[in-house]
Amino acid sequence: MNQKKWLIKTWKKLNRTDVMEREEGFTRLGYSEEEWESIAAFIQEAQALGLAVIRDAAGNAIARWEGMHSEAGAVAMGSHLDTVKNGGGYDGVAGVLCGLGAVKALKEENYRPVVPVEVICFASEESSRFGVSTIGSKAMTGNWHPEMLRDVTDTEGITVRQAVEERGLSFEQMEEARRPCKAIRHFVELHIEQGTRIEEAGKDFGVATAVACPIRLRIRVVGKAGHTGSTPMSRRWDALVASAPLISFISERARQLSEENDVPVVATVSQINLTPNVITVIPEEVVLGIDIRSVNDCLKRSLADEIQEKMERLADEDGVSFTVETLVDDDSVKLDPDLSTSLQQMGQALGYEGLMMESGAGHDVMNMAARWSSGLIFIPCRDGLSHHPKEYASPKDLQMGVELLKAYIRQYAGEQ
Amino acid sequence: MNQKKWLIKTWKKLNRTDVMEREEGFTRLGYSEEEWESIAAFIQEAQALGLAVIRDAAGNAIARWEGMHSEAGAVAMGSHLDTVKNGGGYDGVAGVLCGLGAVKALKEENYRPVVPVEVICFASEESSRFGVSTIGSKAMTGNWHPEMLRDVTDTEGITVRQAVEERGLSFEQMEEARRPCKAIRHFVELHIEQGTRIEEAGKDFGVATAVACPIRLRIRVVGKAGHTGSTPMSRRWDALVASAPLISFISERARQLSEENDVPVVATVSQINLTPNVITVIPEEVVLGIDIRSVNDCLKRSLADEIQEKMERLADEDGVSFTVETLVDDDSVKLDPDLSTSLQQMGQALGYEGLMMESGAGHDVMNMAARWSSGLIFIPCRDGLSHHPKEYASPKDLQMGVELLKAYIRQYAGEQ
Repeated sequence: MNQKKWLIKTWKKLNRTDVMEREEGFTRLGYSEEEWESIAAFIQEAQALGLAVIRDAAGNAIARWEGMHSEAGAVAMGSHLDTVKNGGGYDGVAGVLCGLGAVKALKEENYRPVVPVEVICFASEESSRFGVSTIGSKAMTGNWHPEMLRDVTDTEGITVRQAVEERGLSFEQMEEARRPCKAIRHFVELHIEQGTRIEEAGKDFGVATAVACPIRLRIRVVGKAGHTGSTPMSRRWDALVASAPLISFISERARQLSEENDVPVVATVSQINLTPNVITVIPEEVVLGIDIRSVNDCLKRSLADEIQEKMERLADEDGVSFTVETLVDDDSVKLDPDLSTSLQQMGQALGYEGLMMESGAGHDVMNMAARWSSGLIFIPCRDGLSHHPKEYASPKDLQMGVELLKAYIRQYAGEQ
Repeated sequence: MNQKKWLIKTWKKLNRTDVMEREEGFTRLGYSEEEWESIAAFIQEAQALGLAVIRDAAGNAIARWEGMHSEAGAVAMGSHLDTVKNGGGYDGVAGVLCGLGAVKALKEENYRPVVPVEVICFASEESSRFGVSTIGSKAMTGNWHPEMLRDVTDTEGITVRQAVEERGLSFEQMEEARRPCKAIRHFVELHIEQGTRIEEAGKDFGVATAVACPIRLRIRVVGKAGHTGSTPMSRRWDALVASAPLISFISERARQLSEENDVPVVATVSQINLTPNVITVIPEEVVLGIDIRSVNDCLKRSLADEIQEKMERLADEDGVSFTVETLVDDDSVKLDPDLSTSLQQMGQALGYEGLMMESGAGHDVMNMAARWSSGLIFIPCRDGLSHHPKEYASPKDLQMGVELLKAYIRQYAGEQ
């Protein structure tokens, strides 16, 4: 079977297209049965390639190609197989698939690494189930503390503890997934871009120099309920009317800051929940979920402050009250500049032009970079669409991903 | 027992405070077991006063005090006992309670009516369960057609048919609740104001000259999903950002139209549902539920048109698409001017100042007015708050309601 056919066939296996409805995209929430089934497919494929697979205490699967020096730090790659609800089949899958593809191709070329090569499938990367992202890579890098997530539940009231226990893991023992510094030498994540900057720059792939981590705010605006028919406009404290200008402000200010500073600043009111949300009742309470990102942490924090000040003015004008909770506020993560330059040059040597860029989205690599020399390769995805059933990366670009990871392995894992 | 004590005790019985949690308000959705239990309490009280109770094919309960001429049209009063979710204990209850209170007091005064007197408890007045209001009074006035509601369900997927059948009624036979024209001579609903105009005018009670019926729009705005971190601000089609200025516009224009025309025009975006409503995804779809009311139907329709035009401009600017559905568009209902004047004068004679006003909210009386000479009395409620656990009308104002209804009965039902 040629490489392209193998990629398509393995893509289908990892996405479990035999049991999942493709029209509605894929739903494999973190620590769900569906995620576990995809990881089982990954393990099966890795074993078919002759790799040994270790399942760690956080549910991560590590597929390992032993080198001559098995005690040496591994040259690792990886991503995840969980998805958002009705997500696409490439976010996460691309990295795992191209990693396996690179190993397969190198084996066919009779390449034998000096140091171990690993393809890692991290558990529960998406934040869409528990509001907390990259649980598996947090655990692997020693950034997992049970107390962080003790009271966190999904929308059905299932706690993280219950979810991991349903998968046969022990919540208290997940910390044991932490790997020693010497276990890994380099880590590269390959991921779809989830944007269109590569295409707009006329390039073939991207190399991220930094990952913009989010500030996430939850703003609760409290007005006063009342009957929509009998409450005159002049006697209203409508929480939604008070909030509406904030939505416009956030979008407009992020746009201005991006232009003024020539660095992407993005901000989104991506969640809104109204109480009581009944046609005959004036909105009493609005809860907004706001996501703000930039690799420029200073701009990101100043926008968060501006949002709070704007809300204060709006609340004053409209006679409503509000609270702001900061759910997440992480510094952006710098990736290894030598490794990044090297990845760009490897592409060049293969005939692919690489764009040095920032990553607006968070990925498992942010955790890995805190401990190990790390890099992040982007391959294009159609129209930048992601977290969506129509998410798509072409077999040609996946094939390019395989070649880039092959070059990475050859350069860093040596040759016997 | 004195009248005030009886009112409080009967208020508790009708609201089933023995089994319901008062902190969270009352939840008695239309055609629910809870509504039926409150109607059972009403029937028990009415029978204790010596009234004969008929339960019609739509589940309405008609408590009847026979007069000398039992074939004559009744002098009727009434309201409802269902509530919105976590609603108050006065919306609807006040009218039923004061009706029973008036009968009780007149019986104690040995008054005997010439024509029959009725206290009617209508079924399923609120629209909060099925999105359709005043089902019981629609049926009584011949304005019920099974095909209108054949496919309507509540949020749990229960159809109106299933709901009424669970209450032992036949969906197809509900039409039989229609009463002949001659069955009723006059109808008066007493209701809490659900606003603060009476208090602001320094009056004691209100008499509605007309009921403003709503236009209800459902606007669906469709943009494009995308990752909140990796989609630059300049490459977004955010359905929520496109919709936010519409929310401000609707509130602002209703306020302007009220001032310019010196008649209340109210408009509310009372529902908003976002898809996917996930922190990492740009809003793809927003569905807004909009309620517009004025007794001036022309102003009401022109505001609905302006809303549609504004949405067209916003959609153009933001590159999103939208659809507008008109769910409800009813003409306002005029009440009987002679009866209204008479109600105001009766109040005056008792020492209560009555404000002639419009009703912004819909009530069962809108249906009754299409067939019979009808009036609507408002008693104040604290801070105008309604559809809320803290809804409150004082025993003093309930007592005033009893006296007004007593005067109405004495004047229109004659004396043997």
